[in-house]
Amino acid sequence: MSSLPMIGLTRRTRPSPFFEATRRYGAKAYTVYNHMLMPIWYETPEADYWHLINNVTVWDVAGERQVELTGPDAFTLVRLMTPRNLSKIKTGQCKYVPLVDENGGIINDPVLLKLDEDHFWLSLADSDVLLYAKGLAHGLGLDVNLCEPDVSPLAIQGPRSDEVAANLFGEEIRDLGFFKFRPIDLDDIPLIVARSGWSKQGGFELYLRDGCRGDELWERVMTAGADLDIRPAAPSLMERIEGGLLSYGNDMTLENNPFEIGLDKFCHLDQPFDFLGREALKEIKGRGITQRLMGLVIETSDDQERLPSMTSWWPLSTPAGKPGKVTSTAYSPRLEQQIALGYVPSDYAAPGRQVMVHTPVGERTATVCAMPFVK
Amino acid sequence: MSSLPMIGLTRRTRPSPFFEATRRYGAKAYTVYNHMLMPIWYETPEADYWHLINNVTVWDVAGERQVELTGPDAFTLVRLMTPRNLSKIKTGQCKYVPLVDENGGIINDPVLLKLDEDHFWLSLADSDVLLYAKGLAHGLGLDVNLCEPDVSPLAIQGPRSDEVAANLFGEEIRDLGFFKFRPIDLDDIPLIVARSGWSKQGGFELYLRDGCRGDELWERVMTAGADLDIRPAAPSLMERIEGGLLSYGNDMTLENNPFEIGLDKFCHLDQPFDFLGREALKEIKGRGITQRLMGLVIETSDDQERLPSMTSWWPLSTPAGKPGKVTSTAYSPRLEQQIALGYVPSDYAAPGRQVMVHTPVGERTATVCAMPFVK
Repeated sequence: MSSLPMIGLTRRTRPSPFFEATRRYGAKAYTVYNHMLMPIWYETPEADYWHLINNVTVWDVAGERQVELTGPDAFTLVRLMTPRNLSKIKTGQCKYVPLVDENGGIINDPVLLKLDEDHFWLSLADSDVLLYAKGLAHGLGLDVNLCEPDVSPLAIQGPRSDEVAANLFGEEIRDLGFFKFRPIDLDDIPLIVARSGWSKQGGFELYLRDGCRGDELWERVMTAGADLDIRPAAPSLMERIEGGLLSYGNDMTLENNPFEIGLDKFCHLDQPFDFLGREALKEIKGRGITQRLMGLVIETSDDQERLPSMTSWWPLSTPAGKPGKVTSTAYSPRLEQQIALGYVPSDYAAPGRQVMVHTPVGERTATVCAMPFVK
Repeated sequence: MSSLPMIGLTRRTRPSPFFEATRRYGAKAYTVYNHMLMPIWYETPEADYWHLINNVTVWDVAGERQVELTGPDAFTLVRLMTPRNLSKIKTGQCKYVPLVDENGGIINDPVLLKLDEDHFWLSLADSDVLLYAKGLAHGLGLDVNLCEPDVSPLAIQGPRSDEVAANLFGEEIRDLGFFKFRPIDLDDIPLIVARSGWSKQGGFELYLRDGCRGDELWERVMTAGADLDIRPAAPSLMERIEGGLLSYGNDMTLENNPFEIGLDKFCHLDQPFDFLGREALKEIKGRGITQRLMGLVIETSDDQERLPSMTSWWPLSTPAGKPGKVTSTAYSPRLEQQIALGYVPSDYAAPGRQVMVHTPVGERTATVCAMPFVK
């Protein structure tokens, strides 16, 4: 890890409201997400991982920016952008909504929050959905207001998250259902508190609605978790691959359709509402997909070998020479294996099949497997 | 500089075709630009700067991604997005085209290249214009194909650029006019060669049209410049502030209009073609702007003081308490002063006026001045 280059600081890659706290607490590496600096690890990636698995962690995920849609056509615009049928969404619910363009290509895979009848947030992966939505709204003449509001998620993740949340918000927060949210003022810090987060370890996302209060909120969470040994961490590459969580820009891009990545259940092609990409998705479904995102276990030369960080996709090939690619990889501390996600040609996309992966350190055999790796 | 955190590597922040070369040549720090890693300095920011000023440098600016527009409505879509009158643009020309939304807010400030009647590139600053253009095109029902092509600019910048280019392409390249371009195959490496670049020191941008040839092109440029002491460098914060070059995300965002940043000459509000934002820009022009981007010279406590890198805008205020902000700052080695760009309330936006700047290391007096600092 010591060979990583440095990251430049400039206002263009905006600091989150928690940035000063993340520096103070020793974040060693950052990425840029939606034009915002986002910490990726503190102690080491593996130490952070174990703390997430065993205890509880706090993450600055303010880079998951929101697109806010308000006004008479807000719901119409949301529905136009996703193949998921949203006719029954209720205020206080979160929904995972892959956004697709007219060709069925994935624009982003945000979480939608319904705050009121004419008031929605799209909590984004890393692409400028605000610009896409502005283009669509203007082109279609929709009556909708669009902006990036002053809203910054701070995540509490790990098996002891409920205890931290109960210390912060009272015992009744334990009753909050998965992918449900509530507006809560923590004293006078305005929040939306959701049971959600980008790990499989359980927890909450605190959507801070006043960026000036970032440091204060961070310290409140740290104090509430002090007896539980809460520590700063970040979305974990190891844990999210183990859990089969997909990352936009890594495991899917505009070049991919939802069927290739197993999102069939979010594609309601026969719903009455006419969303973008319906015809394209019907055609893709009719003709069948040519590749599928699968789990992979990559054989290493010995137990000590760790494959390098991925900067480009790694090519893979079937014995017949059909190409695919590895999209994310990490050493799994729980499985003690080099695990990966990748696109495998459809006729080889079945557990147990073997493919060759062309890594920067040489060819490796990999075994196709189902996701998630760890349930 | 040694206190900068590290940057994480992941496919989401894509490597450019020149990435391996930049690592091999010792790039010490990177940023992320259009979801792509971009080097920002090699030796030190100041050493790189002096080499740009005095000699010649090569820059990986592949992060300046292109949006390609082809098809019958390609030109219509380009014209809809910018207030600049493009009725006379010719094939082989580059034009600086601020893009504005229906409110007159700046979406991006790319350079437009006209490759043919129905074939354009927008060479981007840091925002997903492809998504914006897709939204508009779909909403308006335009017949245009949009993509991010396999095109990656490599810049040669500095007073000895012409010599390097002549070594590469022959003496006739010296005749290429400013903001003109030609398709050139360097042996069989396909390029578009433009006289352009994000510095005031002169030079070329080589738009590589085959990402597989990145390393080869880099080495060809290095060989062509070996006798001229060519060195790797990057867009220079110091040089571009001295020259009054503006950076999207730093000096302007969606919240700004073109008049505030002195782009009046690109706003042809009375052209026959009906672009987005015309009404909004007319209204803004009619009522007058409330702030203006100006140069600033910030007083330091002594000759040795260097102000820290900016991660957030720094507030400024006039003696009457009206607020503004500093958007970019650097120590100018040529002027031996801490220079800056910033928004100053209109009634104080005149050379010689003094304002207070609220830096992270305390209050400093600053003197308003005209741009550029160095002609």
